[in-house]
Amino acid sequence: MGLKEEALALHKEHQGKLEIHSKVRIKDQHDLALAYTPGVAYACKEIEANPMDAYVYTAKSNMVAVITDGSAVLGLGNIGPYAAIPVMEGKSILLKELAGVDSFPLCLKTQDVEEIITTIKYLEPTLGAINLEDISAPRCVTIERRLIEEMDIPVFHDDQHGTSIIVASAFINIQRLTKRNLKDMRVVLSGTGAAGSMVARMLKKIGVGTINAYNICGVVDKNKYDSYDFLIKELIDDGIFDTPDNHDNTLASILKGADAFIGVSAPNLVSKDMVKSMAKDPIVFAMANPTPEISYNDAKEAGAYIVGSGRSDFPNQINNVLAFPGIFRGALDVKAKKINEEMKIAAAYAIASIIKDEELSPDYIVPGAFDKRVVPAVAKAVSEAAIKTGVANK
Amino acid sequence: MGLKEEALALHKEHQGKLEIHSKVRIKDQHDLALAYTPGVAYACKEIEANPMDAYVYTAKSNMVAVITDGSAVLGLGNIGPYAAIPVMEGKSILLKELAGVDSFPLCLKTQDVEEIITTIKYLEPTLGAINLEDISAPRCVTIERRLIEEMDIPVFHDDQHGTSIIVASAFINIQRLTKRNLKDMRVVLSGTGAAGSMVARMLKKIGVGTINAYNICGVVDKNKYDSYDFLIKELIDDGIFDTPDNHDNTLASILKGADAFIGVSAPNLVSKDMVKSMAKDPIVFAMANPTPEISYNDAKEAGAYIVGSGRSDFPNQINNVLAFPGIFRGALDVKAKKINEEMKIAAAYAIASIIKDEELSPDYIVPGAFDKRVVPAVAKAVSEAAIKTGVANK
Repeated sequence: MGLKEEALALHKEHQGKLEIHSKVRIKDQHDLALAYTPGVAYACKEIEANPMDAYVYTAKSNMVAVITDGSAVLGLGNIGPYAAIPVMEGKSILLKELAGVDSFPLCLKTQDVEEIITTIKYLEPTLGAINLEDISAPRCVTIERRLIEEMDIPVFHDDQHGTSIIVASAFINIQRLTKRNLKDMRVVLSGTGAAGSMVARMLKKIGVGTINAYNICGVVDKNKYDSYDFLIKELIDDGIFDTPDNHDNTLASILKGADAFIGVSAPNLVSKDMVKSMAKDPIVFAMANPTPEISYNDAKEAGAYIVGSGRSDFPNQINNVLAFPGIFRGALDVKAKKINEEMKIAAAYAIASIIKDEELSPDYIVPGAFDKRVVPAVAKAVSEAAIKTGVANK
Repeated sequence: MGLKEEALALHKEHQGKLEIHSKVRIKDQHDLALAYTPGVAYACKEIEANPMDAYVYTAKSNMVAVITDGSAVLGLGNIGPYAAIPVMEGKSILLKELAGVDSFPLCLKTQDVEEIITTIKYLEPTLGAINLEDISAPRCVTIERRLIEEMDIPVFHDDQHGTSIIVASAFINIQRLTKRNLKDMRVVLSGTGAAGSMVARMLKKIGVGTINAYNICGVVDKNKYDSYDFLIKELIDDGIFDTPDNHDNTLASILKGADAFIGVSAPNLVSKDMVKSMAKDPIVFAMANPTPEISYNDAKEAGAYIVGSGRSDFPNQINNVLAFPGIFRGALDVKAKKINEEMKIAAAYAIASIIKDEELSPDYIVPGAFDKRVVPAVAKAVSEAAIKTGVANK
């Protein structure tokens, strides 16, 4: 049985991947009187008097909705809210299995930005946090920013932040392993959507010196400023994207002499010759999925020192499951109101720290997706950062 | 430990009453490849090609959201969406424990009718059905009607229909026990809100001859037509409420000679003398909670032949758990698009039929809340009625 048949059989056999369980016994009239009327009214009255008691007497404190509009699902594109459900259920059970977070999917039957924002805001009372997922860029950025601003629970768009946090942890470990100063590095980024723009911001935050960016329209250049969407304009304004000195609008032209390549773009954009044109011992993270910008083997053969990808069958997999479960666990543990920059940076350092100095190697820059040490370490770091920055309620 | 302390301790110990479980194993890379990327994409593609396949490959077919705005919670009134959560969680776990239905609560942070309707419509893709709960009248009627009209999954406001279905089953059994023809009965209804108006409609559907209604403004009288909200106007227009011949706007004046009293109103409205003034062997269902319109003992002492209430500590409890679990089970089992009148009537007859002829007695007109025969019988009857009326997708 191939992967397709096996995956379809699994989904069909169980009719989806999640179910709801009761945490309390309901077998007789007394149980009913405690968990439902009339006893339940006492819990209601406590919360009416003090709304924060919803964290005490209800499942809110551990409940996350995974919300999408189905506009950018995996690599499948705008397949809509119905076809998106299996992915969101997958995300929900990962939150539970990896971090003990209760979670259910909500796939919204609208792709209007304002309607999405309004709908999600109205869902706040029952939820401890919101995981936005697979919403197309740059709409996802608008939606996430507005919700962070207007809601009192954490809102986290994993497609923007997940990859960026793990790439940052990889570069933290590259600095540890190679003793190269991130400040002296020039990184070429291919892909400036939701993930790419956040990868750039995180790398700057941890100290990377220069970032040149490339996308479907060519090299990002401040001389073409007016042609960009607000996301890229902001990245230029904020000094995140530098315009390279010499380029002919090709990726090849800006890769020459670069220290690192990071691809969150499209298959087969990078040739072995392009890797050979980079600086000595270049770093290549080619994360287009399932076919990367350049394969692990080709990049290695062309002289790359460290190679990472989105694939589980090669070293240094950049897998979001390293970040989001621990981040939600940490945020929920301290009833955080937001997941802020400091919490994301703390997560990146926590992921990096899992690998001991003596274990670090070019093929072991990032922990494995099922390394049981990751989630507790990330959760602890995120909780501490939330408390330190004053967004915790504990 | 009193009920208050015990109920609060239960809610606090478990931090709410429900949690999400994974139905599939996620222990290694292969599990991940099946339930998440890349395998999950095959399920997405099947649903993209045929949206009804969401019922095959996702948890939609068994997933119900319990939705409120917190505007009319139990007898507590408009306590808002946060304080409403414990009740909705209770409802969710009852659906699971009694009927195997997966369910989670959503308490909306808006009490605007149009906003509630829009929000709920956007939630359709992930859900198999919607249980509206504790929304104030007459808004709840507007919301439910619009959603039934505009959505392709069942929408059921339990406060309207639950009580009405079980009261109907009680009257079906009263006819069986007493051989009195419902057509010859005059019923006095106290309370014309969400529950009361639907009780009246259901009783008419099963054949009750005359219904006189009373509410906080006095006796419902067609001569005061212009003073009523749309709900009462419709009930007059549709011939559900009859104007009594002689009345002085008091409940006492219309109870004289009545065959049955049904209260979904307020404590202690009915005296023993009022029961004595009713027709021979009167029927009294006093369902105000926790203090009924008249107590079981007082009603019996005043000569009532059959007495029911909302209380579990007296005979003939009218408890919604007799209806909603089996109704959702039956509707979900056949992927029903609606829960229509025929399905509700079928539920009423199924509940009534649980009690055999030889078991029927004045104190055993309605099955017990934990009678295990009820849910399967209701589910089967509801499924069959859905198929028969063409709202099933199976």
